Amino acid sequence: MKKRMSCVLVLAVVGLLAGAAFAQFAKTEDAIKYRQSVMFLVGQHFGRMGAMVKGEQPYNKEAFEKNAILVESLYRLPLEAFMTPGSDKGSHMKADALAQKDKFTQMHTTAATELAKLAAVAKSGDLNAIKTQFGEAGASCKACHDAYHSK
Amino acid sequence: MKKRMSCVLVLAVVGLLAGAAFAQFAKTEDAIKYRQSVMFLVGQHFGRMGAMVKGEQPYNKEAFEKNAILVESLYRLPLEAFMTPGSDKGSHMKADALAQKDKFTQMHTTAATELAKLAAVAKSGDLNAIKTQFGEAGASCKACHDAYHSK
Repeated sequence: MKKRMSCVLVLAVVGLLAGAAFAQFAKTEDAIKYRQSVMFLVGQHFGRMGAMVKGEQPYNKEAFEKNAILVESLYRLPLEAFMTPGSDKGSHMKADALAQKDKFTQMHTTAATELAKLAAVAKSGDLNAIKTQFGEAGASCKACHDAYHSK
Repeated sequence: MKKRMSCVLVLAVVGLLAGAAFAQFAKTEDAIKYRQSVMFLVGQHFGRMGAMVKGEQPYNKEAFEKNAILVESLYRLPLEAFMTPGSDKGSHMKADALAQKDKFTQMHTTAATELAKLAAVAKSGDLNAIKTQFGEAGASCKACHDAYHSK
């Protein structure tokens, strides 16, 4: 258990450092495609957890945990991609995201924290606690989407 | 070091099991978008390693390792997405991939193994060994693309 938690933490650190360490997009379009790819995968795996939370799929502790670890890890990758100058053009990201870099980054960090908590609580197998934290994580996603994602 | 290796192994196992554990695509288009998202990210992070291997970017052991871990982990996710019936339509995947499921899966496994070796050798910091293994990994990607990816 300790080993698995440490793995999640290492992953989280990899993710946190990724933006700084991997500062390379050949084109603005690559930054857009990068974050869209990440967010599609996040959406898919978050949705798989959602199906279990809503009872549309039977709850499976192992599958839920894996989805939670994946989502947490993936979500930490694209901050730099979001913050690439000019990348609001031709995407669903509002120009405000770049104009309010600090606020956007703060919201991204909050969501990352909620997703890390979800990965942690997923290991407990306590479905009520998982449902609560899934709601918190979803709310943090929604807050950022409401502020910076256009339809 | 042991802890980090164990993390890579856990990630690898998560990846290997992911196909079986996460068997859910609402639509065929989602399977296509899923694998395209993964492969775009794989391409980005593989390319970042390539830039270091070719000397276009200075070699940075930590950054190389993180890219290698990410690529290894990501690449293990989309086997099910590739093997989704009907998903050759409207994508760059040749129909042969579905017709030759065993061969495709074998090539995918081979590439996954080469990427796992790359992640392992990345930890050594031995740039010559890294370059050699990067070449092996690249060759395993190319073999599969040549067989099953249309332009």
